[in-house]
Amino acid sequence: MPTAAPPATGTRTLAHPPREEIRLEGVLHALSDPMRLTVVRELAAARSAELSCSHFDLPVTKSTTTHHFRVLRESGVIRQVYRGTTKLNGLRRDDLDALFPGLLDSVLAAARRQQERLAA
Amino acid sequence: MPTAAPPATGTRTLAHPPREEIRLEGVLHALSDPMRLTVVRELAAARSAELSCSHFDLPVTKSTTTHHFRVLRESGVIRQVYRGTTKLNGLRRDDLDALFPGLLDSVLAAARRQQERLAA
Repeated sequence: MPTAAPPATGTRTLAHPPREEIRLEGVLHALSDPMRLTVVRELAAARSAELSCSHFDLPVTKSTTTHHFRVLRESGVIRQVYRGTTKLNGLRRDDLDALFPGLLDSVLAAARRQQERLAA
Repeated sequence: MPTAAPPATGTRTLAHPPREEIRLEGVLHALSDPMRLTVVRELAAARSAELSCSHFDLPVTKSTTTHHFRVLRESGVIRQVYRGTTKLNGLRRDDLDALFPGLLDSVLAAARRQQERLAA
């Protein structure tokens, strides 16, 4: 018997923790890397728009970039979905704000403040 | 010529980053470990009191405990001073609040909330 054909849209799914399995420590770890923090800041600035991985021009190799996105996804900070062969990334703001009210905003504000301070 | 005698109090000093060298990424990394987050929560609950390392009953070896305190100190989250042979630890709340207003409080609130949620 032939195996089932993949869905016509060609959609593959990636593993994400459900909201109740997201842990503060994992979120803080995900945000503690400069590259990952940059990604999160850009996603936050994009509001609810989903951005492809190639949108981010990180000064690291492709495999390192993939690693960073995986850490963000597996910690529950971002959601990644395939559209064809492109991975689209969106911030899980609803989940994070529900679990840890004010946390994401305070990290984003701190990152902005630090950037301004170091540029001065 | 003889070298200068150590201070009569026997105080040794430990290296701490000055306020302007504290980085958000380092602070988030320091807070991303469950043991270190526990230490920070206890120090925050102690207000301005300084607590000795032995005050903390962490379920890890002494050398791992020492490592965690060093990460907290080197990231600028805590200040450690020797009183005789005892290391006393205090939260650098003034520095953290000045650099990243609201960040520490939002992490502490998130940790409390998560603890309550997981205990429920």
